[in-house]
Amino acid sequence: MNIDALFSDEAKRMKRSAIRECLKLTQQPDIISFAGGLPSPSSFPYKDITEISAEVIANSGAAALQYGTTEGENLLRDELVKRYLKEGCKVTRDNFVITTASQQSLDLLGKIFVNPGDTIICELPSYLGGLNAFKVYGANFIGIEPDELGMSAVELEKQIVKLEAEGKKPKFVYIIPDFQNPAGITMPVARRKEIIKVAQKHQVLIVEDSPYREIRFDGESQPMLYSLDDQGLVITLGTFSKSFCPGFRLGWIIANSEVLEKFVQAKQTADLCTSAYLQKIAGLYLQKGLFEKNIGNIVAEYKDKRDNILRCFKEYFPEGVTWTHPEGGLFLLVTMPEHIDSDKLFYKAIEKKVAFVQGYTFFCDGSGRNTMRINFSYADKKTAEEGVKRLAEAIKEML
Amino acid sequence: MNIDALFSDEAKRMKRSAIRECLKLTQQPDIISFAGGLPSPSSFPYKDITEISAEVIANSGAAALQYGTTEGENLLRDELVKRYLKEGCKVTRDNFVITTASQQSLDLLGKIFVNPGDTIICELPSYLGGLNAFKVYGANFIGIEPDELGMSAVELEKQIVKLEAEGKKPKFVYIIPDFQNPAGITMPVARRKEIIKVAQKHQVLIVEDSPYREIRFDGESQPMLYSLDDQGLVITLGTFSKSFCPGFRLGWIIANSEVLEKFVQAKQTADLCTSAYLQKIAGLYLQKGLFEKNIGNIVAEYKDKRDNILRCFKEYFPEGVTWTHPEGGLFLLVTMPEHIDSDKLFYKAIEKKVAFVQGYTFFCDGSGRNTMRINFSYADKKTAEEGVKRLAEAIKEML
Repeated sequence: MNIDALFSDEAKRMKRSAIRECLKLTQQPDIISFAGGLPSPSSFPYKDITEISAEVIANSGAAALQYGTTEGENLLRDELVKRYLKEGCKVTRDNFVITTASQQSLDLLGKIFVNPGDTIICELPSYLGGLNAFKVYGANFIGIEPDELGMSAVELEKQIVKLEAEGKKPKFVYIIPDFQNPAGITMPVARRKEIIKVAQKHQVLIVEDSPYREIRFDGESQPMLYSLDDQGLVITLGTFSKSFCPGFRLGWIIANSEVLEKFVQAKQTADLCTSAYLQKIAGLYLQKGLFEKNIGNIVAEYKDKRDNILRCFKEYFPEGVTWTHPEGGLFLLVTMPEHIDSDKLFYKAIEKKVAFVQGYTFFCDGSGRNTMRINFSYADKKTAEEGVKRLAEAIKEML
Repeated sequence: MNIDALFSDEAKRMKRSAIRECLKLTQQPDIISFAGGLPSPSSFPYKDITEISAEVIANSGAAALQYGTTEGENLLRDELVKRYLKEGCKVTRDNFVITTASQQSLDLLGKIFVNPGDTIICELPSYLGGLNAFKVYGANFIGIEPDELGMSAVELEKQIVKLEAEGKKPKFVYIIPDFQNPAGITMPVARRKEIIKVAQKHQVLIVEDSPYREIRFDGESQPMLYSLDDQGLVITLGTFSKSFCPGFRLGWIIANSEVLEKFVQAKQTADLCTSAYLQKIAGLYLQKGLFEKNIGNIVAEYKDKRDNILRCFKEYFPEGVTWTHPEGGLFLLVTMPEHIDSDKLFYKAIEKKVAFVQGYTFFCDGSGRNTMRINFSYADKKTAEEGVKRLAEAIKEML
């Protein structure tokens, strides 16, 4: 039987990505990997999870193990409301839907907004998992190269006006304002306000994807895009994958009630509801103040690891290599001399038992061939130093 | 801003269903509900889950709380392989992808196979959650009325030939062979073999959705469609939602490796992976033999509840009302005299504080107006008797 003939257009747009094959190589046990986006296992609150798991079963087991509502558990949404009120966001429980982590939020975004050929404006580079989710629905991308403050509002408006002249409108503008993945840039408040002004003037939706917001090492927290808009134009995605643990697969979407209703409908056919057991554990974890406490540990550990890797870059990388200095998060972007192709470097690095992700996979236009994304949250400091040494050798051999 | 203009075609096909609004009514605390598909909370293995949760964190916490593979945890897939080998299915770990419960499996089916206007052949009636998932992708349905042995293979072939004459092919045939939801019919082996013969002759995919298979009260287990096919034409969906607990959101898809690869790609953008923590708990639960032990309890409890409700029907329902006698599962279908409209009956029943699901919602052609689906797994026997009494009164008032 010719199975390919049966597959849908969406299925035909899916590909086992080259990058996924590369990631397999990075999982060999003797490889030092800067490739994934794995949080440090030492940051997981094992004891708290064991205790709260038992507490949830003892106190509300029948509901925890039953079907839940599509919108999500009330306790968890109420605890999230508290957090976002502190951020200056005008939200109630009804602005939230709990998702099976951010990847589902990204998929639902594509599902409810994107028809084949629709345009999404994003940063150049931007998060691979988001771009891939939108691509399945047939999205076209306009990538805006950031300056040191992130996406330029002037360039954004120029692109929107250009689309308008063609009778089009972007379905949304996808922005990672805090410790951008992979570029590591954080957008300051002035730029955020400019972006919101453009969005309001042209009535364009902004998607604020902010998975790392809590993990800030230096500088001051910048107001959320959601808090700067009073017209319901911002959709914000949050997740526990980096600030608590990815194994719980818990994320959330915040949106105005009209848009949220559509997300709920989409989630209902996508997976009905997210585990009430895990939501109840996470809700209690927040309510007991354990989340705040543990974030302090994560920030301290990752800051130390970032400082270490920046020091190693300076010590070992040859001249002509530059890198970003993120104020938080898990990633930074390394730029090599123009003629160095990160694909070739990748295989040379694998020979030396060290891995990264080729930066161009994050550029919707295929540029950034001479860049690599480095994760600094996973490897311990000594391992990271050895990894940077090996990487430096690989780069030097290509110069 | 006109948000409706931004929504995709998929989003426009989603609707907050009337049935969902009805289900809200059924959740009032003083209502006796036969409406949902809730397993009995007394069937959940609370103590085992608490103990195994702690064991998983203690022994493999770092992996349990980390990102997992898209395909799913090896222990869980290996334990499932053992179960299906006993069923005569030729499978290895690589035929399985773990999903965020069956609703995700149904959604991924729609995603990878259905373009707008494509045809799916299903039973009449069939599972609402499946039909809704496929509908979002723009599926058209051909419903085949079952005889007492389930879907007729003769009628199936007739419909396939008719499509072939139009140059079309169904994307798949959706069948619930065991304790069909909502009709309660189980397809005997002879009919299963006829269905597979038709599928092989016309090279058509069969989707075997079997969420209740383990919950058999009477009669003999019939071989799985998957085990009767040697050409890779059957895709089987399984879930722990009825046989363990729905709160874990764990299901699986079994398929030939080519089709499975596409499911894995689709799941990767849909939600990356399903909770490793919950998969590890479920894997150990199976490995320790606790699943088998608990299924015995579930079967005993639901059999008792089925016997009770059948007795109550006989005692209280007026003449002219008939019902199915399922050999297992959680549901049965009640048929009332032709002129009784289940929508009108629904609101009358709600006044009397009893609820069911209008049967026509399970009929892809909108027929079955005079039917209702009754869940018998949730309410205890005394409550169920009171519920049937009230339902009988409502029916009598409409005669």
